[in-house]
Amino acid sequence: MAKPETITSAANPLLKEIRRAIARGGRTAEGLAIAETFHLLEEALRSDCEVKIVVAAESVHSAAEGHVRGLGRIKVAVVPDSLMHALSGTENSQGVIALVKLPEWRLEQLFRGCPLVVMLDGLQDPGNCGTIVRAAEAFGATGVLFLKGTASPHNPKTLRASAGSLFRVPYLDGVDAALARAAVRQNRVELFAGVPAQTGVRSLSQVDLTGRCGLIIGNEARGVRSELRAAALDVAIPTVGVESLNAAVAAGIMLYEARRQRVVAG
Amino acid sequence: MAKPETITSAANPLLKEIRRAIARGGRTAEGLAIAETFHLLEEALRSDCEVKIVVAAESVHSAAEGHVRGLGRIKVAVVPDSLMHALSGTENSQGVIALVKLPEWRLEQLFRGCPLVVMLDGLQDPGNCGTIVRAAEAFGATGVLFLKGTASPHNPKTLRASAGSLFRVPYLDGVDAALARAAVRQNRVELFAGVPAQTGVRSLSQVDLTGRCGLIIGNEARGVRSELRAAALDVAIPTVGVESLNAAVAAGIMLYEARRQRVVAG
Repeated sequence: MAKPETITSAANPLLKEIRRAIARGGRTAEGLAIAETFHLLEEALRSDCEVKIVVAAESVHSAAEGHVRGLGRIKVAVVPDSLMHALSGTENSQGVIALVKLPEWRLEQLFRGCPLVVMLDGLQDPGNCGTIVRAAEAFGATGVLFLKGTASPHNPKTLRASAGSLFRVPYLDGVDAALARAAVRQNRVELFAGVPAQTGVRSLSQVDLTGRCGLIIGNEARGVRSELRAAALDVAIPTVGVESLNAAVAAGIMLYEARRQRVVAG
Repeated sequence: MAKPETITSAANPLLKEIRRAIARGGRTAEGLAIAETFHLLEEALRSDCEVKIVVAAESVHSAAEGHVRGLGRIKVAVVPDSLMHALSGTENSQGVIALVKLPEWRLEQLFRGCPLVVMLDGLQDPGNCGTIVRAAEAFGATGVLFLKGTASPHNPKTLRASAGSLFRVPYLDGVDAALARAAVRQNRVELFAGVPAQTGVRSLSQVDLTGRCGLIIGNEARGVRSELRAAALDVAIPTVGVESLNAAVAAGIMLYEARRQRVVAG
């Protein structure tokens, strides 16, 4: 481990870059993702991702150094607690921010084996997107497509909500809907669009999700766009009393059901 | 409809009271809940809850008045956009805040018929709590117990995440764990504690959720506390790769599975 560097100025180029990435909800200019909290640091370290540098508040820098000790030359930069707080709000970061190089995936990696892909169609809430990636990993999905207009996988909030799954689940960002449809056709994947429960729509447990399939999760307010619904079978989670479920809960249930069917089918 | 009142000072007692309630994540001193967004206003109006007053930013006050027109004497107070923004952040409120009297529920109302109750054990995130109440309504749960140490149902963020379900689903707040266990025993309800997948723990689809049952959802980091697990059967959602699921996703899946079994059982 390299000797810790101490940063004392808010104008330090590294801190400015982190601040900019957080403000725009994306990566640093170098393409590094902002991983806040000790949990995400641990997840990054146990994955194949490269941790470039760890920025730690003074009050927790020993703990941060403990995490990276013996793991090669990962640099730790120590900043005063006040600077860390201004950077991120300590309740979000626990005083630790790791800059992580996420894997770069090729389209075919999302469709390996018997594909179970998730397509996020315009979801606005990074918390929902990250939560869905976490569920996608949990239920054995082969990949997640972030269609254009969806919150970024590189938003620090998406990464945090994924609880580290974005370090491992193959994903592509900013995918054009036409390209996504072409990839789906080429890979002989059947699409299912999650829609609110209504007369005439098939129930989730009545459709066969054991084959090569893709689950489309729509925008929180507008649902799945019509051009994608036209290429998919509508499927609903039977509910009472509510207009719809939270998008991440709906996605989690669709993935759970797909996994349940696929395990039974062997 | 009464003639709109115009508020021009940030020191206005009503605005101060709203600000205080938002800051402490609870209700006003009068016990009114803060319902932000037009959607929540509509949900409050279509429920049996009394809407006491609607505070609207100048730029959206006509729309707000349109919502309450013809619905008796609901007062609309108009505030400059800048004051509304300072109150709540317009992206959260859409410039409209309704003060709503939530129903008061008695314990027995949560256990009516063949009970399906949800017990929230120390969840910290109001977004998770509200999302779970939304799923509880969607899957026909009879009530939600917020155990002591859980985020408040009256936090404006909980209410917003519930998408209006808190206006309709019977719930109790700040419930002592011993009291909850006594109520469960008295109502002959079998408890199931959601735990991470591990060897020896029963899978969700292998347990019978068709009877009088209660689902315990634990704290995001620590899970269900041991004294409650001692009174419950551990049950896990089979997953791969992850330590756990998001608490609201896990709760949604448990509720979905309970509903699926109960519908099949007739």
